[in-house]
This record gives sequence, structure tokens and C-alpha cells, in this order.
Amino acid sequence: MPLRTYAQNCSIARTLQVVGERWTLLVLREVFTGQRRFEEIQRNLGVATNILSDRLQTLVDEGILERRAVSDRSDRFEYRLTDKGLDLNPVLLELMRWGDRWDAPADGPPKVVEHRDCGHETRAVQTCSHCGGELTARNVRLHDGPGARAAA
Amino acid sequence: MPLRTYAQNCSIARTLQVVGERWTLLVLREVFTGQRRFEEIQRNLGVATNILSDRLQTLVDEGILERRAVSDRSDRFEYRLTDKGLDLNPVLLELMRWGDRWDAPADGPPKVVEHRDCGHETRAVQTCSHCGGELTARNVRLHDGPGARAAA
Repeated sequence: MPLRTYAQNCSIARTLQVVGERWTLLVLREVFTGQRRFEEIQRNLGVATNILSDRLQTLVDEGILERRAVSDRSDRFEYRLTDKGLDLNPVLLELMRWGDRWDAPADGPPKVVEHRDCGHETRAVQTCSHCGGELTARNVRLHDGPGARAAA
Repeated sequence: MPLRTYAQNCSIARTLQVVGERWTLLVLREVFTGQRRFEEIQRNLGVATNILSDRLQTLVDEGILERRAVSDRSDRFEYRLTDKGLDLNPVLLELMRWGDRWDAPADGPPKVVEHRDCGHETRAVQTCSHCGGELTARNVRLHDGPGARAAA
């Protein structure tokens, strides 16, 4: 589906063009939680192998994953997150936090997040890089930035 | 596409079942930035009216948007974010932050975020609800939560 110029000149739209497909984010979830082999990811997700191959290749092409030979076997490969891929961690944590809050099973969240630096269970709090205060839908505002006219 | 049991019992997968479609998140972006009328959203996104109708209805059905009559015109409606919808703000800010960092136009980001409480330009920093330290891909770990067996 084509997006018009206005929609394209938006970093949300750009990001979604790269990762905005459900299987792609679930593949990344697998890699973040330690699954690095095609077979492991395929088994956990139950996704068709051709779809998984396609999504992994896209993620490699975009520089989000690296495909590396496993050292002792030249015919076996694993996928590793690059810095660009690791920087998607906040997106996944926010998706999880929202799902836990609004749509968790009756028993509670399927997974809990531990902050290893303090050793406690945590949920993500989004804060301001300048003052450290919490960012909310009510206290942020968007303005045109330097790239506002880039697609004009 | 069906997701198997393992994948479904995950708050990321659940969230993506609700909002994991590119147009849905772009529709929400429009409402977050002040577009509340069908015609405004349609014009900005250039999305087909049947797709937009479908996505808005899904968002209303899910309790993310409310459809309200504009007070002076019984035949005109607008869409408002509920608390559940407003709580998706962190997801959108993280998608924007990532796109700005890794895939912005050469001139810079199309939009900048102002934190109105401090008046400064900001980017989102994800912090721990317990200790306030920054959460990163390297210092968080997932464990099974109370709902881990809900879909077993």
C-alpha cells in the first residue's frame, strides 16, 4: 500500500515501513529473548518457513540483524542484533507494557521484566532526556523539525 | 495469519493483534496530533476510505478511540482517544525516536518533540519504574509471569 508524501515524511511511518509487520516484530522478540537460529525461531512462532526467511532477510538488509556463521560449523548460521536492532528494545517493551496493562490474561502478565541493574521487577517509564520528568500524551507536543520539508 | 499458542500468550503479540497494522498506527498518529475528523485523517494519510472506516471501527471496538457527535451537528462525528488509547503514546514516541535515529532525512528529523512541563526539546528515555535507571536491551531480562500458563 503506498503512503503519500505527507505520511512518508514521518519517522513513525518510516519505522513502520521497516518493522511494521506483525511477524517482523515477533521475529525480533525471539532474537531479543535469545533465539538465534532459524529452526528455533520457526518452531516457537509456528510461522511458515518462506515467511520467516523473507522477514529475516529484510532485517539483515536493513542492518537490524547480522547473519553469522556458527564458529564450529560453516553450514550453520545464527542471527544477532546489531546496535540498530538493539535500539528497538524500547519499542518491544512498550508494546509489552501496553498489552500487559490493557489485555493481559486473567492470571496476570505472561512475562515480567527484571531490571538487572537493580534486581527488581520493572515496567517501562518514559522520561524526558532533558529534565527526567515523565513524558505523557498530555505533556508532549510535536513541532516541525529540520527535516520537515525533506519530502516536499 | 494464525499465531500458535506460544506466540499468542505474549503481550507483544496481543498488542500487535490490536494495533499491529501500519495504517492503524498511522491513524492513531493523526488523532494524537489533533486530527479528529474522518475527512481530515483521510486527507492527510491518503488512505482509501474503506480501509480508514475499517481501522477506525476496529479502534472504537477495542476501546482505543471513542466516536462522539460534534455538539452542534448531530450528523458530524469526531474521534477521541480514550485512556487506553492515550496509553499508546509511548509506543508512537519510541517508533518515532528509532526512525529519527536510524532513518531520518539528511536534514534531520521531520518532527521534534517538546516536553511541555520543562519547555525543552526531548527524546524519550526508557527508565525503570523501581529505581529510575535507564532500561536497555543489555540490562533487562524476561521471566515467566503469573499468566505464563494461561494459554497452555
